[in-house]
Order: sequence, then C-alpha cells, then structure tokens
Amino acid sequence: MEFTINQIAQLLNGRVEGDGSQKIYKLDKIQEGSPGGISFLSNPKYEPYLYTTGCSAIIVSEDFEPQKEVQAILIRVKDAYSGFTRLLEIYGDSKTTQLVGVEEPSYIDSTSSMGENAYRGAFSYIGKNCKIGNNVQIHPQVYIGDQVTIGDNCVFHPGVKIMKQSQIGNNCEFFAGAVVGSDGFGFAPQSDGTYKNIPQLGNVIIEDDVSIGANTTIDCATMGSTIIRRGVKIDNLVQIAHNAKIGEDTVIAAQSGISGSSEIGRNCVLAGKSGIVGHVKLADRTTVGANTGVSKSIDKPGHTVLGFIGFEIKDFLKSYAVFKKLPLLQSKLKDLEKKQ
Amino acid sequence: MEFTINQIAQLLNGRVEGDGSQKIYKLDKIQEGSPGGISFLSNPKYEPYLYTTGCSAIIVSEDFEPQKEVQAILIRVKDAYSGFTRLLEIYGDSKTTQLVGVEEPSYIDSTSSMGENAYRGAFSYIGKNCKIGNNVQIHPQVYIGDQVTIGDNCVFHPGVKIMKQSQIGNNCEFFAGAVVGSDGFGFAPQSDGTYKNIPQLGNVIIEDDVSIGANTTIDCATMGSTIIRRGVKIDNLVQIAHNAKIGEDTVIAAQSGISGSSEIGRNCVLAGKSGIVGHVKLADRTTVGANTGVSKSIDKPGHTVLGFIGFEIKDFLKSYAVFKKLPLLQSKLKDLEKKQ
Amino acid sequence: MEFTINQIAQLLNGRVEGDGSQKIYKLDKIQEGSPGGISFLSNPKYEPYLYTTGCSAIIVSEDFEPQKEVQAILIRVKDAYSGFTRLLEIYGDSKTTQLVGVEEPSYIDSTSSMGENAYRGAFSYIGKNCKIGNNVQIHPQVYIGDQVTIGDNCVFHPGVKIMKQSQIGNNCEFFAGAVVGSDGFGFAPQSDGTYKNIPQLGNVIIEDDVSIGANTTIDCATMGSTIIRRGVKIDNLVQIAHNAKIGEDTVIAAQSGISGSSEIGRNCVLAGKSGIVGHVKLADRTTVGANTGVSKSIDKPGHTVLGFIGFEIKDFLKSYAVFKKLPLLQSKLKDLEKKQ
Repeated sequence: MEFTINQIAQLLNGRVEGDGSQKIYKLDKIQEGSPGGISFLSNPKYEPYLYTTGCSAIIVSEDFEPQKEVQAILIRVKDAYSGFTRLLEIYGDSKTTQLVGVEEPSYIDSTSSMGENAYRGAFSYIGKNCKIGNNVQIHPQVYIGDQVTIGDNCVFHPGVKIMKQSQIGNNCEFFAGAVVGSDGFGFAPQSDGTYKNIPQLGNVIIEDDVSIGANTTIDCATMGSTIIRRGVKIDNLVQIAHNAKIGEDTVIAAQSGISGSSEIGRNCVLAGKSGIVGHVKLADRTTVGANTGVSKSIDKPGHTVLGFIGFEIKDFLKSYAVFKKLPLLQSKLKDLEKKQ
Repeated sequence: MEFTINQIAQLLNGRVEGDGSQKIYKLDKIQEGSPGGISFLSNPKYEPYLYTTGCSAIIVSEDFEPQKEVQAILIRVKDAYSGFTRLLEIYGDSKTTQLVGVEEPSYIDSTSSMGENAYRGAFSYIGKNCKIGNNVQIHPQVYIGDQVTIGDNCVFHPGVKIMKQSQIGNNCEFFAGAVVGSDGFGFAPQSDGTYKNIPQLGNVIIEDDVSIGANTTIDCATMGSTIIRRGVKIDNLVQIAHNAKIGEDTVIAAQSGISGSSEIGRNCVLAGKSGIVGHVKLADRTTVGANTGVSKSIDKPGHTVLGFIGFEIKDFLKSYAVFKKLPLLQSKLKDLEKKQ
Repeated sequence: MEFTINQIAQLLNGRVEGDGSQKIYKLDKIQEGSPGGISFLSNPKYEPYLYTTGCSAIIVSEDFEPQKEVQAILIRVKDAYSGFTRLLEIYGDSKTTQLVGVEEPSYIDSTSSMGENAYRGAFSYIGKNCKIGNNVQIHPQVYIGDQVTIGDNCVFHPGVKIMKQSQIGNNCEFFAGAVVGSDGFGFAPQSDGTYKNIPQLGNVIIEDDVSIGANTTIDCATMGSTIIRRGVKIDNLVQIAHNAKIGEDTVIAAQSGISGSSEIGRNCVLAGKSGIVGHVKLADRTTVGANTGVSKSIDKPGHTVLGFIGFEIKDFLKSYAVFKKLPLLQSKLKDLEKKQ
C-alpha cells in the first residue's frame, strides 16, 4: 500500500485537515504508530493517544473536537471506525491473492467435483458425491466427508473437518481445525448403569455468510438438522451441540457452548465462555454476558443477562456489589441481634 | 428404511393402536413431523406436540394416556425412549457401511500392522511397533504414534491424534480432532522465575467402550498412566490432564476440565463446563452441575453439587435465590439499623 | 534406565541412607511403587505413602524426618522435587531419540528450506518463503503457512497449524492440533444488523522457550502482532485473541481465555478456565483463580483474584462463606423485623 493522505481521504469520502500530500504505507494502532502509518480514533478511551501518536494520519469522525493540539493530519469521515474498516478491506484485498489450482498429493473421489477457480491444497480429502460451488478454497489437510454440498466463495482453512451430509451455503469461512457435523453426544442410560450409543443420523446446515472459528465443534443432529443461519459469526473453541439452531446475525464469542436442541434468536450476542443449557429458546437480540450460564428460556427480546445462573445484568451487578460486602452485612446483623 | 407400522411394532415388541398398514420411511422429531415419519413421546414436556404432529406414527409407553384426540397411529412399547433408540439403531445400521481397505497415499511403518477388515484412509499415519486389532477404521488424516496398541472395532475419525504408547481397548470411538496422549502440563518453577519442562514419561490407557468427543484433549501421565475406564463417554472440547483417572460409565459433557491427578468415580455425571481441581477424588455417582468448580474431594456417593465453588445443589439454589434479593436485604438491614 | 541407588545419589548430589547397591530400573509414583522403582516425597500430603510404598528407593529432602519406620532406601537431596525432576530429565533423555530426515509424501515449497538435523513427517506442509532453523521437528500432518520464520530446536507435534507470517523463536514446542495465527474475531456491525469482516492483517510473534498446548488457538492481530513473550507456558484448549500480549514466564492453564488487546504481565499464573475481558492490563505476578473472570485492569503486582467477577481472593472466600449461609441470614433478618 502506498497512497497519499489526500488519496485515502478521497477513497473514504473524507476531508483532510492539514498537509494531505504526505505518503502513507502502513496501518498502525494509534498507541504504537510511526511515520508513514495511519490509524483511527473511535473509542474515546483512546483519545489521549491522539495527542502523542507517531502516526502521520488519523481518521476521526466528522464531529470530533480535539481537546489539545494534534500533530497528526486528521481525515474526517462520517464514522471513523467504519472508515478505518473500509481502509483495512482495501489493504487486505491488495495483499490477498486468490488461490487457484491443485497441489498434489490430494484426494478427491471420482463422484465429486469442484466448480470454477477452485483450490485444493496438498493432503486435502474430498469424499463421495460432494457438490462444491465456484471460487472455493480447500486448504491443505482439510477433510470433506461424503455427500457434502458447498456453495460459492467458501474458504476452508487447514485441517478443517466437514463430516458427511453437511450442507453449506455461500461465502462461508471455516478456520483451522474446526469440526462440523461430528456425532452429537447422545447415549441412552441402560438399567445396568452403562450407556448405549444413540445413532446420530441428522446433519448440519450452515447458511450463507457464516464464519466458524478455529477448533470450534458443531455436532450433527440426532435427527433433522443442527442449523446455523445466515450471517452467524462463531469464534474459536465454541461448542454447538446436536439439534441446536442459531438465528441470523448472531455472534458467539470464544469458548461458549450451546447445549442440545436449544434455539438462539437473531442478532443475539453471546460473550466469551457463556453456556446455554439444552432445550431452551433465547429471544432475538438477547445478550449473554461472559461466563454466564443460561438455564431457562428468555422470552422477551433485547435483554442482557449476567451471572453464574444469568439474570438481568443491572440486577446481577447490584447483587454482586452487595455480595462483596457480605461479611460486613453479616456482622451488622449480629450486632443488631445482640442489641435485641 | 421402509417398513409398515405393524412391522416396526413387531421389531419393538410393541402394540399398534390404529391402522398398522401405513408405510414409514423416515424418523422425525415429534414437533416437526410429516406423513411417512415416525417419532416418539417420552418427555411429558413434548406431549402437546402429540396432538398436532404431522408424523404418521408415534411410539409411546404402555401406560401413556392421551388427554386429547390423537391423529397419529400409536405404537405402545415398554419404554418409549428405549424403543425409539432401538429404531434409530436399526435405521443407523441400515445406513452405515463398514469401510474396508486402504486409500493412498497413506503411511504405515513396516513394524506395525492392522487386523482383519481394516480401513486406512488417505493421509493417515501409523508409527512404529503398533498393534491394531480387527475391524478398526483409521479415517483420513489420523495420526497414530509409535508403540500404540488398539483393540477391535475402534473408529478413529478424521484428524484424530493418538500419541505414542497409548493403550486403547475394544469398541472405542474417537471423534474428529481429538488428541490422546499429548504431554501433560508440567513445569518446575526455577529460582529465577523461569520454568523448566518436566518430562512426561507416562501414557494414556483407554479401556473398552469409550467415546471421546471432537477436539477433546487427554494428556499422558507424568509417570504411570492417565486412565479412562470402561464405558466412559466424553463430549467435545473436554480437557483431561495428566494422571487423571475417570471411573467406569462416567459421562463428561462438553468443555469440562479435569485437572492433574484427580480421580472421578464410577457413574458420575459432569455437566458442561464443569471443572475439577487437581489431586481430588469424586465418589461414585457424583453429579457436578454446569459451570461448577469442584475444589475438594467429595467423599459420599450420589451427591449433586452446583456453584462457582460447588456445594450441595439444594443449598446452592437456596443461597442463589437470596443472592438475587441481596440489595433488598441490604436496605432492610439499613432500615433496622436506623430504628435502633 | 538401570542404575544402582548409589549411582543415582551421585547424579543428584545426594546422600544414601541404607543399602545403595540395589538396582533401580523405573520411575514410580510413591503410592503405586514396586521393587526396582524410585519415587520422591515432597508434598507432606503424600507422607503416609512413604511408610507403605513398594518402591525400592525414595528421594527426600535433606531435613526430612520420618515419623515411622521406612522400608525403602532414602536418598537425601537439597530439594526432593527438583531432584526427582532432574532424574526424570535424565530418564527422558535416555528414551528420546532425535528425529531426523524426511518422510514421504510431504510438501515443502521450493522457496522454503529447513536448517540442519531437520525432521519433516509425512503429510506435513510448508508454504512459501519460510525460514526454519536447525534441529526443528515438523511432525506428520503439520501445516506451516507462507512467510513463517522459525528459530532453532522447535518441535511441532502432529496436526499443528501455523498460519502465514507467524514469527517463532527458539526452543518452542507446539502440541498436537494447536492453531497459531488464525484470523482474529473481528466483525464491524452494520446498520442493517449484519456484520462485515474486518480483515485481520497482523501476525503472531512467539519468543523463545514457549510451550503451546494441544488444540489451543492463538489469533493473529488485526494489525501489528499478538505477542507471546519468552518462557510463556500455555496449556490445552486455551484461547488467545487478537492483539493480546502475554508477559515473560507467565503460565496459563487449560481452557482459559484472553480477549482481544489485553496485556498480561510477567510471571502471572492463570488457573484453569479463567477468562480475561478485552483491553485490560494485568500487573506482573498476578494470579487469577480457576473459573475466574477478570473484568478490569489489575494495577498492583502480586495479587490473587478469585470469583465470577474476580476480586481479592481472601475477600472473595469470606463473601462466599457468607453466601453459603444466606438463607439463614435472611431468616434472622426476618426475625429481627418481626420483633420491631
């Protein structure tokens, strides 16, 4: 990347404050910048760095008013965060080369085929009767089981495993080591205390624009389908159990777990390490806090829950504040009892 | 699968209520069924669906009494859940084909060999001096280290890694990406604040009928063996540390962790995200609730614990109920103090 | 291994109490030992086993005074634990053979090369323009992306994935299935409720003497670098998000998670399943308890926090002790109210 500040402002529909002829050749963090770098200011927490940054240029929002003198050239745009994201994309596009072709040895059953502009890395494996769209990248050491269907523009990073009969839409990305369609955890207790396998005969359906993190696991349904709807973004080391359903544009952070048959609504946010028990439903736009366990359905949309067994975040934080003072409360109570 | 309802009833030792000549060709969920489908009713929570289901037939228990008119044909069996599980098995058997043969390229050291009816997938690797029984399936991209012994009828799904000297019984199943026998986390603190590796010289022993979930990790012992007893079922993304011992027929749900040298009894149930500290023992039939941390041994069998630091579930739930009202308690206490 | 007790004492600068001519040929646990075995006593909790052990020899500390008669020969050293660790090392060295050579098929781009004494296992993959030092072991099914640099004496166990542009120091070990440099979880919310990928253009830097556990995931930075400093030891199934920085000689136990842009100091200890929110800093020598969530920066070094939202461990334990008695407190309060 090498642009002038003026050129970048033009790309972003922005306005330059200062000398726009300087050259920019890298993206920086505002607190670590050096000459030739560009960064952005969106979170007010980072404002102090604006006055000390070594970056040549900073993208800020139209209405931002600096409190001190700023050394860097400012580019004013409608929304600084989106503007910078756009710049990241342009930069990313300029660095990414579309992989095409076949590296050997790789394995594809004769009954399966890939569309145009395909990449199959070395040691990748594609089973029987798979239908795979155009512009799909199968990186090295990926496994695609039998009867898998895959749309266009999907990327499977190294070591991803897609088990048989999975159905995957367009524009999906699977990060290294993710496992999709492994058997659900289903065992029927027997009268002698042992367990018997319950065959897991369903599959996983993943719609368009879904992202699945590294070493995340998504189990197939016992019957029917585990379903990940359009636009869902799942982080690393997440567990999605059999027959779960995740609504459109829901975001699930790392190490969260969704138990069997639970249904998460649209536009929900599950923070890191959250856990949802089986057979419950979460309304649209529910937010589940970090570490939080959800033990029953949440019917009203738009709520945020927090806690070991989660409840309304405001109430939890009030209770937790008192929890911290419990020894004091206890001694006050004792004092009162003595005075009786 | 294509049977008449009468044929299915015969397979399950059941009794038909209605026209048993209708044909069934798929398994359905009771709430999602359509004609030609069969499902079951066991959990009373699902009873309302019995009256609205589109399934042609429903398996119910002998003594079940419907509260309204039922459209579907009923098959009455001793236990509806077991009956349906049996049906799943029959269906599963009819769909599964035993894989046999070798896909190339694959790697097996000349000092190792597999028994009869073996399957070795492409890009699988088998090290030196391994002894592997009959009817074993080594799927693509599986790694088996040196001096591993494996019994009969085991299945290793794609990308499973079994490290050297592991000993595995009969009828075990390892799901994609599971790692068995990786080094335990052992580092000796040095006086200068650094850590020195403690060599991990032990192994992992897995007895018969064990199931290990996708991307789960089981560490080898520092010395001696990490032991997973007969019939243990472990879900996805579980961590079992060095020298842990898991008793027969114990079930461990996803994202749980067992720290070093801890011993879990027989027929225990560890719910999702539970965590057990090191060097403790859990009595037989202990149940550990979701998200629960266990910080000391549990001596009496058959107890259920819950909580951030787990204790008897009944007591925890009572305390948590009061926790939710702590701000109110606090203000009541203040009122009392004022009145003094 | 076959040494006399006298020889072992000599290796450890120790002093024998009893007949030092007996032969030792294996390492044992003190509670499980048998003749020919040697073990150690360091944790007083294990002292009862000293009087019943079947081991031929036990390493104890110089100043240890047995309370009963001991059958085993004692080797007295400065520190029993370190002494035994040293013995483990000697034993380990005698068992480990340095792997050298290339197994086929394996893949290395013509623009990349490895140093002396290299091992490349079957089905391993090395991308473009990689620089790899001496004595590096790339086990089977490992993936090394483009432009990765690796120092000397590193070991990559089976199935490890190192994504492009990662920089790795000397003497690092990566256990099976670990993923380094996968994309950070970055999505910009759009006004219509959908999310747009934020390109992840940074990398991961791992300094010398680092250990990364099985199936652990470390994301690349959005820009700049995710940094793991010298001597850091990370257990299995840990998540390190984009732009995190982990200080020297910090230890992170299994299933912990560090969110984006957080900075952990030097010589910290994060117990199992701990979680750190994004954009906070932990001072040097901070200890975070098991299951504990850290929601804000910890400024003073050397503190230990515990709790759902962690605070000073002593205070948490006091509060938790009262929490267990909350129903009692509540009824006492009610009694007092009645008496008013």
